[in-house]
Amino acid sequence: MVKKLTSKNKDYSKWYNELVVMADLAENSSVRGCMIIKPYGYAIWEKMQYFLDKMFKETGHQNAYFPLFVPKSLFEAEEKNAEGFAKECAIVTHYRLENDPDKIGKLRVDPKAKLEEELIVRPTSEAVIWNSYKNWIQSYRDLPILINQWANVVRWEMRTRLFLRTSEFLWQEGHTAHETREEAINETVMINDLYEKFAKEYMAMPVLKGIKSKSETFAGAETTYCIEALMQDGKALQAGTSHFLGQNFSKAFDVKFANKEGRLSYVWATSWGVSSRLLGALIMTHSDDNGLVLPPMLAPFQVVIVPIFKNQDELALISDLVENLKSDFLRNDISVKFDNRDKIRPGEKFALYEIQGVPIRLTLGPKDLMNKTVEIFRRDSLTKDTIKIENSVSKVSNLLKEMQKSMYNNALSFRDNNITEVDNFDDFKKVLNTKGGFISAHWDGTEKTENEIKKITKATIRCIPFGNQDEGSCVFSGNHSKQRVLFAKAY
Amino acid sequence: MVKKLTSKNKDYSKWYNELVVMADLAENSSVRGCMIIKPYGYAIWEKMQYFLDKMFKETGHQNAYFPLFVPKSLFEAEEKNAEGFAKECAIVTHYRLENDPDKIGKLRVDPKAKLEEELIVRPTSEAVIWNSYKNWIQSYRDLPILINQWANVVRWEMRTRLFLRTSEFLWQEGHTAHETREEAINETVMINDLYEKFAKEYMAMPVLKGIKSKSETFAGAETTYCIEALMQDGKALQAGTSHFLGQNFSKAFDVKFANKEGRLSYVWATSWGVSSRLLGALIMTHSDDNGLVLPPMLAPFQVVIVPIFKNQDELALISDLVENLKSDFLRNDISVKFDNRDKIRPGEKFALYEIQGVPIRLTLGPKDLMNKTVEIFRRDSLTKDTIKIENSVSKVSNLLKEMQKSMYNNALSFRDNNITEVDNFDDFKKVLNTKGGFISAHWDGTEKTENEIKKITKATIRCIPFGNQDEGSCVFSGNHSKQRVLFAKAY
Repeated sequence: MVKKLTSKNKDYSKWYNELVVMADLAENSSVRGCMIIKPYGYAIWEKMQYFLDKMFKETGHQNAYFPLFVPKSLFEAEEKNAEGFAKECAIVTHYRLENDPDKIGKLRVDPKAKLEEELIVRPTSEAVIWNSYKNWIQSYRDLPILINQWANVVRWEMRTRLFLRTSEFLWQEGHTAHETREEAINETVMINDLYEKFAKEYMAMPVLKGIKSKSETFAGAETTYCIEALMQDGKALQAGTSHFLGQNFSKAFDVKFANKEGRLSYVWATSWGVSSRLLGALIMTHSDDNGLVLPPMLAPFQVVIVPIFKNQDELALISDLVENLKSDFLRNDISVKFDNRDKIRPGEKFALYEIQGVPIRLTLGPKDLMNKTVEIFRRDSLTKDTIKIENSVSKVSNLLKEMQKSMYNNALSFRDNNITEVDNFDDFKKVLNTKGGFISAHWDGTEKTENEIKKITKATIRCIPFGNQDEGSCVFSGNHSKQRVLFAKAY
Repeated sequence: MVKKLTSKNKDYSKWYNELVVMADLAENSSVRGCMIIKPYGYAIWEKMQYFLDKMFKETGHQNAYFPLFVPKSLFEAEEKNAEGFAKECAIVTHYRLENDPDKIGKLRVDPKAKLEEELIVRPTSEAVIWNSYKNWIQSYRDLPILINQWANVVRWEMRTRLFLRTSEFLWQEGHTAHETREEAINETVMINDLYEKFAKEYMAMPVLKGIKSKSETFAGAETTYCIEALMQDGKALQAGTSHFLGQNFSKAFDVKFANKEGRLSYVWATSWGVSSRLLGALIMTHSDDNGLVLPPMLAPFQVVIVPIFKNQDELALISDLVENLKSDFLRNDISVKFDNRDKIRPGEKFALYEIQGVPIRLTLGPKDLMNKTVEIFRRDSLTKDTIKIENSVSKVSNLLKEMQKSMYNNALSFRDNNITEVDNFDDFKKVLNTKGGFISAHWDGTEKTENEIKKITKATIRCIPFGNQDEGSCVFSGNHSKQRVLFAKAY
């Protein structure tokens, strides 16, 4: 039998950790801080990749692949970027092992095979990419460059959690080069909007958009745009970032182009990314005490069919019917799995697919065959119904659309009910500690105030939202504030 | 203007290196031995991935993701495997940089951040995967495990060539676990056949199948099955391998399962892979002095349309027609690019798409509009024709199929004409130095003979083909031989 999951309300963190493992999404490896993404979890990531990749290509981007390693001298070229990542780098110093003379059958690093220059395992690829763009760009005719890369990156982490914070993770990183400041900013904003659309339409996850405060801006960027989501425990999660890099990298790597008038100027840059962290966000947006709840758009299979049978003859009868049903589903672009294993009882299958968040379960037994009915179970609402088999394809098709919409709406109303406007620091602390969620408050725009608030409450400025121009007084210092910003504790 | 390519006959190696760069497939990076796969080259790799991935899934495999790093103690667990890769490993020894006190603005490795145990950047993932399978497998009910991974791997290389031999490369690696020896062998053979089918149907590349001699067997395998292709210069290229690992890894990592009778026994294993090296094989199977020649199944776009126009009005008229044509092509699953750039002359576009190997070029000018015709150029045969616009979709559709077939047939007849049976060592050397290709010769089965032949001629045993049971005398030692094997110089 599948083990019972800890309740969300009892211990949200424990619930999350158990769910990831019990739903067979991922597990810790014996390599410090690195995770194994198991087939079921990876299948969700593949769906995410598929839809994002399509959106990138539809907006003119192409994929390419750049080296895993960054020589130290390139890594340190853009100083702010280097400083931002220096403390969390895996560093390759040698290129050969040799037999250990002291231990038979064991190996040791060959001291003679020391690299002249150390290689950093990429924590992000701006350095290695802009060092290449330097050779690709001479004139405005070479611009824009609109490239994306699907890759693994490494950021050494001391405290790790599956999907949310791991030393190695999977992501996509876009790196674009433009003639003008305006064009680069437009790209940055367009991608942030694209991420919002992906979160909404595929993950059924509402996000808030805005820009980061200086202290939360990407190392090496002028401005970081972001989408921020709210998890069920009231903590925020940064779900995607899109950086306007200005001319920082083109200056660090001396990338100039001749413009239409023949004058040389530095190229304008952007970079943007989302990662396998989105799997964590997906889990903590929709799931419940019974396990994962997946939006139909990202479910590895949307429908599971479980037969109820006492013997092989009954199974054969059910299987005949199911094979036809499966073809009907597939013709309607509905993915379906028929679990006809006979060593495992239906109850165990129910528990498994519930914890794995399969959107719809159909159950078929001998009685159903007689009545030409099928039992339909909806994962998000945990409700059951009995329907005619002949209506099952249209019913399932409509239900999947309805679930996708209703999961979004539920998450949206949860999120909206958890944005609280506060106007003094006592309320700020009270709301943060009781209700949680986003706190919309005035801020004087200084890093000092931001740091003080963080020190006292652990809340950070998640984003400075757009089009929110009501002036006021800072919730902490009382000084003048240009607009409300959104605070929260965050993953 | 596009620079002229060195002729294949003049200097094949130079021709290859120039072609890869001029067709914009890849380039060397400033990171020793690591390549940059540029968008056009990556788009071909994506097509390869797409079709292979589909074939893997249709045969019951699932994708997953395992860590980039292998702790040294895991790496050395299977001794033969460790020995095979020890001399070409990138090794992570530290996890942090710090400011260099001697050089302002520079960084250095923080000596206090030394890892307790070094991490090997995976050259292949058997060790890290079997260390996980250990926890996944208890009973025969957990078997088989059929997992594939798309990943980057690193094997430190001193002499590198784009696609063919680079320190970092992209690949897929399948790792399966089975109850019985027979089942594992069947999987190994099935995958080798799948690779053959992929090479034939998508790459239009004929391959020879067989097993490797002991000295060429994968480190840690019992038997390596392989597909071997013949390049245009008469050298062989190992295009894919599928390894029967026996119980070597299950013993090294102590992976046992309870069989149906309840007795514990070690699991049987396979692993198999193809890599971005296939791009090199693709180039050297089909291309000519004008550049790349791509089989339609793997071309990023199968048709390019180049307009001929004197002014914007003419371009507008042509564009109207082309937009309709494009929709017709897309409806017929033909990918098409319309190059309407007005700063670049048609001749330059012709040269570009020729060197990039676009299968079919359509040219449309004002005269064609009047006559309702279009000029069609076929890249593989370099032949031109004029056809009615109304017939262009069916004509192109048929032509693409014909090209795919004819490219395979040409490569096949070249390959078959370059397998030479020899019966004495003088002929062996003469054929190898004049004609090249595969030499089918008797071999006494000893590593000594194999090594002697390699030392004298640089030719290696590429594979021991199946079903080739004519006995004879070894071409080198004169001793008894069970069957002819295939020798060649190889990439």
